[in-house]
Amino acid sequence: MIHFKAIGKIMGALLMLLSLLMLPGVGFALYFDSGDERALLLSALSSFTVGGVLFFSFSKQDQNIRKREGYMIVSLSWLLMSIFGMLPYILSGTIINFSDAIFETISGLTTTGATVLQDIESTPKGVLFWRSMTQWIGGLGIIVLTVAIFPLLGIGGIELFVAESPGPTSDKLHPRIRETAKRLWYVYVGLTILAGVLYLVGGMTFYDAINHALTTMATGGFSTKNASMAYYTSPFIQYVAILFMFLAGTNFTVIYFGITGKFSRVWRSDEFKAYTTVLIVLAVILSFPVYHYSGQEIEKSFRDTLFQVVSLITTTGFVTADYTSYHSGLTLLFFMMLFFGASAGSTSGGIKFVRHLTFFKNSWLEFKRIVHPRAVVPLKINGDRVTGKIITHIMNFLLIYLMIFTFGSVVIAIMGYDIMTAFGAVATSLGNVGPAIGRVGPMDNFAFFDPFSKIFLSFLMLLGRLELFTILVLFTPYFWRAN
Amino acid sequence: MIHFKAIGKIMGALLMLLSLLMLPGVGFALYFDSGDERALLLSALSSFTVGGVLFFSFSKQDQNIRKREGYMIVSLSWLLMSIFGMLPYILSGTIINFSDAIFETISGLTTTGATVLQDIESTPKGVLFWRSMTQWIGGLGIIVLTVAIFPLLGIGGIELFVAESPGPTSDKLHPRIRETAKRLWYVYVGLTILAGVLYLVGGMTFYDAINHALTTMATGGFSTKNASMAYYTSPFIQYVAILFMFLAGTNFTVIYFGITGKFSRVWRSDEFKAYTTVLIVLAVILSFPVYHYSGQEIEKSFRDTLFQVVSLITTTGFVTADYTSYHSGLTLLFFMMLFFGASAGSTSGGIKFVRHLTFFKNSWLEFKRIVHPRAVVPLKINGDRVTGKIITHIMNFLLIYLMIFTFGSVVIAIMGYDIMTAFGAVATSLGNVGPAIGRVGPMDNFAFFDPFSKIFLSFLMLLGRLELFTILVLFTPYFWRAN
Ligand SMILES: [K+]
Ligand SMILES: [K+]
Repeated sequence: MIHFKAIGKIMGALLMLLSLLMLPGVGFALYFDSGDERALLLSALSSFTVGGVLFFSFSKQDQNIRKREGYMIVSLSWLLMSIFGMLPYILSGTIINFSDAIFETISGLTTTGATVLQDIESTPKGVLFWRSMTQWIGGLGIIVLTVAIFPLLGIGGIELFVAESPGPTSDKLHPRIRETAKRLWYVYVGLTILAGVLYLVGGMTFYDAINHALTTMATGGFSTKNASMAYYTSPFIQYVAILFMFLAGTNFTVIYFGITGKFSRVWRSDEFKAYTTVLIVLAVILSFPVYHYSGQEIEKSFRDTLFQVVSLITTTGFVTADYTSYHSGLTLLFFMMLFFGASAGSTSGGIKFVRHLTFFKNSWLEFKRIVHPRAVVPLKINGDRVTGKIITHIMNFLLIYLMIFTFGSVVIAIMGYDIMTAFGAVATSLGNVGPAIGRVGPMDNFAFFDPFSKIFLSFLMLLGRLELFTILVLFTPYFWRAN
Repeated sequence: MIHFKAIGKIMGALLMLLSLLMLPGVGFALYFDSGDERALLLSALSSFTVGGVLFFSFSKQDQNIRKREGYMIVSLSWLLMSIFGMLPYILSGTIINFSDAIFETISGLTTTGATVLQDIESTPKGVLFWRSMTQWIGGLGIIVLTVAIFPLLGIGGIELFVAESPGPTSDKLHPRIRETAKRLWYVYVGLTILAGVLYLVGGMTFYDAINHALTTMATGGFSTKNASMAYYTSPFIQYVAILFMFLAGTNFTVIYFGITGKFSRVWRSDEFKAYTTVLIVLAVILSFPVYHYSGQEIEKSFRDTLFQVVSLITTTGFVTADYTSYHSGLTLLFFMMLFFGASAGSTSGGIKFVRHLTFFKNSWLEFKRIVHPRAVVPLKINGDRVTGKIITHIMNFLLIYLMIFTFGSVVIAIMGYDIMTAFGAVATSLGNVGPAIGRVGPMDNFAFFDPFSKIFLSFLMLLGRLELFTILVLFTPYFWRAN
């Protein structure tokens, strides 16, 4: 039996927290006199009321949270936050239909950053701030999940690579989790503030700086400008964005080790090394053709390349150049980056380097196993041996990810869009990136999709953000039959 | 140390066999007075001479063939056959440059069926027959490999599913292999003759009937007509083609059981059931949109759909309708079929149903394993338990297949072709299918590619035909370091 009462209590607390995070938007609405303060207040009030009723109805319940409640809590949390999170859009009249509002909200909470807004700069400032805030909430949520919930659920096979988290065998929350969560929360908040200050120094207004700081650290990619980061021609601002996108895509535990001076622990992370190396190598190599095809100066060519590579691989999705304008080979390479994902234990979405690394290393060893069928050939990541079970988990994740990408593309193509657009929209939704190729290139938005496709793509965003299995398992009989 | 002398002896025998199979083309050249008999005779003579020298130089060698010689023999066989197999094209002046000749020959021997010939019907009849013969030789070769070599090498994880072949643990050729090989050879030859007779009954000329019979049973897809099977408007001929493509894509051991009346053994094959079911379901479902978008009669719509579905899934590549002309959703679905492959132990290329089946079944069970982490949840195929090692092998194969597809597409896109053409050309080469999407749609040919791309695509055909690992392992240090 599922302990629904324990779930209800947590959902209540979550909605009350959500309502509090709607309030800063009210301040901006009043300051800019943008007229959306009542919509935000009303949204906050609704969330608080429903949340309060839920919380206090079940406050005396003391049911245990087990694995199965864990799955429900994760999926329901994102769903409830999506439903109440879209109230500011609807009540302010910024977005008037359900599919657009749910798309924009889920795109925010999953830190995807795809948008249906055709003129971002005319959106009321309070609601626009809430839009950035949804991404920051989503980034925060994913840290909590990574540290506290996924290890418990044993999902996707990466739990062992997120430093200091307990293994999947434990069925209860590990006491050290509270400590780890606190550290990562400090890293997240601290870096957000630092990014904001540096954006301010670079010349952004206070409002723009705080908005972009929130969406950078969440690897979200929502901007307050129609042209995204291309609006800011200042190289300083763009390099700040590159740095903080890079940090937001780094395992936060690794950052914590870096801050506290434990550099040996930083270098012990194979994922961090692979992530950093791939970013640099790709940026340097691709700069040459970008320089050749764009006809820009060397520094600008390099900066554009580095920005787009970091933005796509960290799944942030800020844009300063149209990477589909150079050459079909480059377009395909940038499209491939939608399947990278940055690090486990960061706010980035997608597949993530540790999974790619496990697959590549293991495939290479597979050849050794073919030549020496009787030899025991272990795989090591971060100096530790990876079990066959984890390897199977990860290969399964990769294949199911690609399968969902394929079937998702078929659905969008059947809805009447060309194949490149289908590939692009599905890859960028599933990977929580934002921009893509085809009609959803870096200069486009998602407004033209029909309501069904918008809701379908929103579902893919949730699926990707919650590491596929969290949601998929709810569709199997095993979950409901279990006791 | 690699036993090169044993390899030399086998290569010699192979080349002598190849030269004999060039001779029927001489007969057709003389009969049609097409002027290419000297080119074919000279090619046969060269192959025979080189083969004879190799064979008799090493005939007294009695070195053992072990796993490592096995890999070399497989790769070298296809390479040597490709080099001597292109002589008829070059000596007859049909194809005058190296990259075109190697492409056409490898496309034949790998049973891919992609062509650089712009006017097939003007090709001299002797050489054209040789072209069909290369596919039949390739089909024969793959049966030998499947039965005798791949199980020894333990490649791709499907050795256990090819009925009656010994497991990968054995390091020597199993005595029962000769018996199994003989049966499958009877099936191959018998069905080729039957197909030829039925094509003749349907109204094809003797020459066309024998050519199409050879390329149908090889799941090759080379035709003697520019319009491929669309030239034959007779429904009878098209249904005969459908039936024999289906049989060519069935595990030959299953066919043998069927012929000898052991139907319980036929129904025990999960792969056969899945293969048949998917073909029928896809053909029926897709008939409706094809009927809607093509505006043709019901029977013609169904026949077109069934033909194209069977042709793509069995990796034959005959064409009777342009499947890219209906709707982008249908185009994408037909493109996906390039990744299916038919059955292990047939002449079809690609991934093959048994691998898909293992992945799907295992993924489903993975959810059960997530919910019940301590339970032992075994996977069964054909009623037998599949070991974790085989499952890992197969998932690895799938991922490496998709990785080669991705990187291959990048190479072709970098060479200056659009992304859809790159996806299409690479998918159809790797899967040994023939037609694809983009500029290599069902009505196009491969003549426009530059020489580098042609050779690269030929390499992908070989890679796909030899189950990836046979060739890839030669590029690892493990292979050369082993003793
Ligand atoms: K994003
Ligand atoms: K073929």
